[in-house]
Amino acid sequence: MHDAPARTTRPQDFAPAFEEVSALLGDRFTTAASVRAHHGRDESYHPNRDPDAVAFVRSTEEVSQVVQICARHKVPIVPFGAGTSLEGHVVAIQGGLSIDMMQMNSVLEVNAEDLDCTVQAGVTRKQLNAHLRDTGLFFPIDPGADASLGGMSATRASGTNAVRYGTMRENVMGLTVVMPDGRIVKTARRARKSSAGYDLTRLFVGSEGTLGVITEVAVRLYGIPEAISAASCYFDSVQGAVDAVIQTIQLGIPVARIEFADEVQIDATNRHFDMDHAVKPTLWLEFHGTPAGVKEQAEMVQEIATEHGGGGFRWTTNEEERNKLWHARHNAAYSAAALRPGSRFWATDVCVPISRLAECIVETKKELDASFLPAPIVGHVGDGNFHVSFVLDPDKPGDVEEANRLNDNLVARALAMEGTCTGEHGVGYGKVDFLVAEHGDALAVMRTLKNAIDPDGIMNPGKILRL
Amino acid sequence: MHDAPARTTRPQDFAPAFEEVSALLGDRFTTAASVRAHHGRDESYHPNRDPDAVAFVRSTEEVSQVVQICARHKVPIVPFGAGTSLEGHVVAIQGGLSIDMMQMNSVLEVNAEDLDCTVQAGVTRKQLNAHLRDTGLFFPIDPGADASLGGMSATRASGTNAVRYGTMRENVMGLTVVMPDGRIVKTARRARKSSAGYDLTRLFVGSEGTLGVITEVAVRLYGIPEAISAASCYFDSVQGAVDAVIQTIQLGIPVARIEFADEVQIDATNRHFDMDHAVKPTLWLEFHGTPAGVKEQAEMVQEIATEHGGGGFRWTTNEEERNKLWHARHNAAYSAAALRPGSRFWATDVCVPISRLAECIVETKKELDASFLPAPIVGHVGDGNFHVSFVLDPDKPGDVEEANRLNDNLVARALAMEGTCTGEHGVGYGKVDFLVAEHGDALAVMRTLKNAIDPDGIMNPGKILRL
Repeated sequence: MHDAPARTTRPQDFAPAFEEVSALLGDRFTTAASVRAHHGRDESYHPNRDPDAVAFVRSTEEVSQVVQICARHKVPIVPFGAGTSLEGHVVAIQGGLSIDMMQMNSVLEVNAEDLDCTVQAGVTRKQLNAHLRDTGLFFPIDPGADASLGGMSATRASGTNAVRYGTMRENVMGLTVVMPDGRIVKTARRARKSSAGYDLTRLFVGSEGTLGVITEVAVRLYGIPEAISAASCYFDSVQGAVDAVIQTIQLGIPVARIEFADEVQIDATNRHFDMDHAVKPTLWLEFHGTPAGVKEQAEMVQEIATEHGGGGFRWTTNEEERNKLWHARHNAAYSAAALRPGSRFWATDVCVPISRLAECIVETKKELDASFLPAPIVGHVGDGNFHVSFVLDPDKPGDVEEANRLNDNLVARALAMEGTCTGEHGVGYGKVDFLVAEHGDALAVMRTLKNAIDPDGIMNPGKILRL
Repeated sequence: MHDAPARTTRPQDFAPAFEEVSALLGDRFTTAASVRAHHGRDESYHPNRDPDAVAFVRSTEEVSQVVQICARHKVPIVPFGAGTSLEGHVVAIQGGLSIDMMQMNSVLEVNAEDLDCTVQAGVTRKQLNAHLRDTGLFFPIDPGADASLGGMSATRASGTNAVRYGTMRENVMGLTVVMPDGRIVKTARRARKSSAGYDLTRLFVGSEGTLGVITEVAVRLYGIPEAISAASCYFDSVQGAVDAVIQTIQLGIPVARIEFADEVQIDATNRHFDMDHAVKPTLWLEFHGTPAGVKEQAEMVQEIATEHGGGGFRWTTNEEERNKLWHARHNAAYSAAALRPGSRFWATDVCVPISRLAECIVETKKELDASFLPAPIVGHVGDGNFHVSFVLDPDKPGDVEEANRLNDNLVARALAMEGTCTGEHGVGYGKVDFLVAEHGDALAVMRTLKNAIDPDGIMNPGKILRL
């Protein structure tokens, strides 16, 4: 099993800073082992490392004060949201202070006419959508987990709805960020578009806490569609399913979701949720629009699917059936893990141009079929993004070694197809080495940015870049 | 009339560098006065300043070599595209070398299945769309002018289609950039989405040549809609027109264009193009979709317009009528300029949240009505972006002074409404001072980025930031 990179700092050097933070926050500062342990891990299989202390903050100003203290004493800072990251983003490689953002959980303003809102970074997507319920609006980005909007911004999250609504890249309108020296910066105003200087918003979206602490997030909202329908359809081959996707996208049919599951995943889902889907490569879809519009979309997709050997096309506007379908999809990784009781899962995350998607999945499946690890596939195929869920026991070296081997091959395959090692999970410390192959000389530019903004390297050290 | 900032460099210091560039490029390097004069101005009223020499480049490698020479000798570099910028972006404030990108005009690859293509920076949007004609695809971003894709990327351009298809921010997938030290960097691979590190693409989109020279651009493409229809409708008040827009956007009706023109612009358009629109605040719309879809959209918008006092609703799928409408819209500024023969125009560019748009336009019109300058208004109102076209004689100090006064007030008004001083034209050297009020401390972060990436300040000095 791989280890976290070596710690090169000494906890005792941080004591003077912690005294100051403790004086500032009172009992919202703690060094309790159980709290630290909770903050040194995420949902991944990556080895944990606990921070030396945890600060629970309640305002941007408080974050600024805490960061100023840490900056003065060169104490590493790890911003912590819902803890649902998948590449060890919150693991405190160099110890230091975890800043828990989850008490910053207020919806600050909803501008219904402008289709936007501003929230504190600890607001989760489900909390936001519950808050919006009476406005007729919703926030579509849905990574599955009930992540915080700060965390989703920091990892440039997306999920099943991205094919229609985009990712956090497209949907964050502006951020309030505490810089590594404690300055408070607003990256943008509330206009829908602007050409007024460098795009600081997009610089911080995806920066994974390495350039500053995101404390407030302004995002786009959308009207809840008048009609929503869901559909499913199975295919004899992966190629058929993906070709149907390509044609759907190319015709500009505005599908809200178009998700792929291979027969291994369908089998796992059937078992775990007591469902009876045909055990074949499958597409799950959702359509948003007017009643006539969603009907037209579904009919067009059915025709396309049929052309590519799709069968068993079912579509429904029934909310209960729809929720059941997406519940099963969102919990695909858990139903996969249930294939081997006591296991955890490791989700890969490559994304390739959709013209290469079938080839990429087929080649990958060939390798997976020859492996002893259970490894179902699901994918946000409209974007060319898919996940292999390795079902493994992190304590068995053979399991982790095999998953590493398969993932290395998968990433190499995706890069050779002009793809990326991570479509939506981010780099954390799990994918640092892949960025060298992916970005080449561009990595040096990223390093220049990091050094300029965080010269002392206190912001989430060891993530994204090796300095 | 305002002057360009003072030149602090001496042309003779650049002679050794120019000798090297001349040896490299032969007759594609020139110091001819007429060529320099063409490269020292854009389409704005801003005072010109000529570069000391112009280099016509043909490849990324050539740009890299030229930039390396300039970097060694600290010669200012101004990338030059179609020259259609509106805030003096290409004016050579510190002299130096203009790098003309327009011979880099090859479409490098079209990936029809992936809905993307890669072009050299000098390809214009009309050239690209002509190239794409047989593929069934198109590139939607349409700033009116036939700008180069490199220039459109550099200014984060948008235009009439942005309400549906987004701006260059959303549609550039990746860039090849020559950095200020000559390194060649690719900002992203061809995946639709990625969380693999800092978003270098978005850092360079909107950087106006101040961080490097964009040499290749990969952009998203879209299927040409099966059906396109256009509509127009007039209102008794600005408020009615804007309220109709807000409701259209809020209901999620996927209008492809929703453009506003005030009665002053309609009058100018009627005169210039011999048309007979009612001289009232007017909306011009376009719908993209299936035949049933565009019909449904038009009917919904007609109903909304009627609710808000709209009259004379006309819609058409006739291509000739549609083209006539959009030709008149694209040439609004020229028909405005024709109101006073011999005049030029100065287009303002604020963008505000649409909930404030009616208020912003109404207050602005009150001031304009009291002014002696003709000043029609058009707007990409779905985005909250509108332009006042001051019709002025740049040689009359009174004209320019009055336009400056009105524009200062307009920007202040927009900023007070959480808007931006520029929705799509960019900063150039015309809006440098407004950024202080707009961004506050965030401007210092932009300065940090600029200094880190271009420590010698050779890239388009005097634009976006005052250093």
